[in-house]
Amino acid sequence: MNSTFNISLISIGDELCIGQTLNTNVQWMSKELVKVGANIDYHLTIKDDKAEIIKAIEFLKSSSDVILVTGGLGPTHDDITKKVLTEYFDDKLALNEKVLADLKEYFKTRGRDFLERHYEQALMPSRCKIIENKVGTAQGMLFQGDGFELLSMPGVPREMQYIMSNNFIEYIENRIKKNNHNVIVYRTLRTAGVPESTLADLIGEVGFLNGASLAFLPSYAGVKLRIGTNSENFDNAKIELDKLEKFIMDRCGKYIYSNSDENLENYLASLLLENKKTISGAESCTGGLFGAKITAMPGSSFYFNGSAVTYSNNAKIDILGVRKETISNFGAVSEECAKEMAIGSREKYKTDYAISITGIAGPDGGSESKPVGTIWIGLSSSNDTYAKKFVFTKDREVNRELSVHNAINLLVKEIEKEVGN
Amino acid sequence: MNSTFNISLISIGDELCIGQTLNTNVQWMSKELVKVGANIDYHLTIKDDKAEIIKAIEFLKSSSDVILVTGGLGPTHDDITKKVLTEYFDDKLALNEKVLADLKEYFKTRGRDFLERHYEQALMPSRCKIIENKVGTAQGMLFQGDGFELLSMPGVPREMQYIMSNNFIEYIENRIKKNNHNVIVYRTLRTAGVPESTLADLIGEVGFLNGASLAFLPSYAGVKLRIGTNSENFDNAKIELDKLEKFIMDRCGKYIYSNSDENLENYLASLLLENKKTISGAESCTGGLFGAKITAMPGSSFYFNGSAVTYSNNAKIDILGVRKETISNFGAVSEECAKEMAIGSREKYKTDYAISITGIAGPDGGSESKPVGTIWIGLSSSNDTYAKKFVFTKDREVNRELSVHNAINLLVKEIEKEVGN
Repeated sequence: MNSTFNISLISIGDELCIGQTLNTNVQWMSKELVKVGANIDYHLTIKDDKAEIIKAIEFLKSSSDVILVTGGLGPTHDDITKKVLTEYFDDKLALNEKVLADLKEYFKTRGRDFLERHYEQALMPSRCKIIENKVGTAQGMLFQGDGFELLSMPGVPREMQYIMSNNFIEYIENRIKKNNHNVIVYRTLRTAGVPESTLADLIGEVGFLNGASLAFLPSYAGVKLRIGTNSENFDNAKIELDKLEKFIMDRCGKYIYSNSDENLENYLASLLLENKKTISGAESCTGGLFGAKITAMPGSSFYFNGSAVTYSNNAKIDILGVRKETISNFGAVSEECAKEMAIGSREKYKTDYAISITGIAGPDGGSESKPVGTIWIGLSSSNDTYAKKFVFTKDREVNRELSVHNAINLLVKEIEKEVGN
Repeated sequence: MNSTFNISLISIGDELCIGQTLNTNVQWMSKELVKVGANIDYHLTIKDDKAEIIKAIEFLKSSSDVILVTGGLGPTHDDITKKVLTEYFDDKLALNEKVLADLKEYFKTRGRDFLERHYEQALMPSRCKIIENKVGTAQGMLFQGDGFELLSMPGVPREMQYIMSNNFIEYIENRIKKNNHNVIVYRTLRTAGVPESTLADLIGEVGFLNGASLAFLPSYAGVKLRIGTNSENFDNAKIELDKLEKFIMDRCGKYIYSNSDENLENYLASLLLENKKTISGAESCTGGLFGAKITAMPGSSFYFNGSAVTYSNNAKIDILGVRKETISNFGAVSEECAKEMAIGSREKYKTDYAISITGIAGPDGGSESKPVGTIWIGLSSSNDTYAKKFVFTKDREVNRELSVHNAINLLVKEIEKEVGN
């Protein structure tokens, strides 16, 4: 069996270690590198500290073909990565005229002054290969180590992504092909409306896997089944994964809505576009999260007209036409209110389907009959209007996320039913 | 100088390494542990693999007082952490009657069947200390190593947080006090409306810092200035940080709206509550993100009435009363439309202040005169109605985040002006 192409990631920054910043870079890099078949081994986060940087490289270099380093390349005093790496690779910093000219141009086109402190960004290790960064002032630097390469990039997500996307991922893809490395390939089967244990029981023994892998990933947005394989190439991987997918589909296919990394919002979007249908929302406890999730996707204006966030009772009455008596008799968190909110949204926004969400997200506001976590989700279409009750958790954020996921799932099921999928 | 109390984190899970799951656990743990003065050194993410788990512990143990491990404790075949740790610490698994009884109770109160596979969750390393998890089936396990301790927890955020909050953070706090460890203390000064370089120039030389640290953290939500100190105790740390804060306030105080970790939404909330004012929104390209951010805070119903997400032109006309001619003459992304949206929202939701956001988030929909990233933010109050133009980036997500941040900042400035802060 050929070896895989192994990549490890080092993130440098005190703000990451102390939890002030969420490390989204490693997720982005890993996702993109997995697409070209690379094997991602370690993510290591350390401080802006010389000894820690050296210790990290020493720890990872023997198992890595490439080490990707982000962070510590800014122009302020706490950024030491360039200096430490230059020393580690026994190199010297020298003014790079090309980088200097590009930098001056960069500032000029942005109408900003080129300051004394920016000269430092043009000092480069003399032997490293420069990987261009056109969206920031710190360039990518590719160092040659003993049996491994190390790419240093800025920690600003947009700049790291620029360097990776415009140059480096393709470079890695080519190396994997040229050296006949095995590829690691994953596929995700996404389920909705079924607990992990039921899926595990339906799929049964996994002894048949034979080198391939199966993992269960439960989340608020449904359980994902991840299947993976270590194969000689992408064609072989596809054959392996197809076989495994069929095995699983035969056992619990009815719960699986997608075999790609598309999420439920993407799937809803394709359903709506195919059937030329439009949607709108009416939100109370989610406060706009439903609309925000739907409109996170480019092109959502083709099927999403809007969502009335009606947080106060008066807003529900004035904007959505919920009847005063409905709220005084049943409360805002009720089947009746959810239904009237959905009807109001469909009428106001002139859509085919409207979804409403009203509930007690918490931490306060619960009662014995309506504890925190009680959420009514309403749906109105030209065929029918109904509402469904959910009782989620005591956690505000979880309740809001689960509300949106279940609202989208309800929409999907209704549209599938009506269009006969 | 006394030593700090050093903690390192190991996250176990293929889904983290390959970027399928964003690692939010390490941020949460680090944040909470920093509050009690601990020094957080390394975050290391590895696969569900025996050799990698052992290699990770070996790498971290000499520099750590405590290693926190999350993940790999589920009931499925890919979860191997318990087995590997038991072996590593030279222990044996044995049925723990107390854990078994608790587990059976756990399933009973949730109306779920206790299955054969759940027995395994009651097998515990005989010598480890069990740290109770009442919100899941895998218990925390505290192992004694040679000069370090290791706590193994499930990777499910809610369960990890339960174990940490109900028991373990206090345990660490006590150890820091009892052994007279130095504490690491941070404070964040939050700025709005000013670039990093201007701040750096205003603050000037940092030679005065004398053991304390200053870091610049730019983000879409404004630049944060983090000051930190390594002190004998929290009282001394406060003196140091007060001194440093004063130095900075003297130089750029007008840009600083908070010296706590409260964000701009929290600050807006306190302004609104103090002055008994209400707000509402009118959103186009942000699709509900403004409302979602405002309502992420418990208690937002005291000042937030709602937000009309009007994604289509018709919705803007029907729901917010934007005039047809305004859209046909100036387009939906215009000063005029933004103003009418804000006026409409204030009238419909009967609020003191309304904010509107209309723009081209991208990636498509731009033109020469209105490129992607062009956003109009409108504000309407009883005093005034106006709109401000922003040109952000080419990135949809960034544009949406920046729109919401700037909308909140505009609100803050307007309210401060009107109430005379």
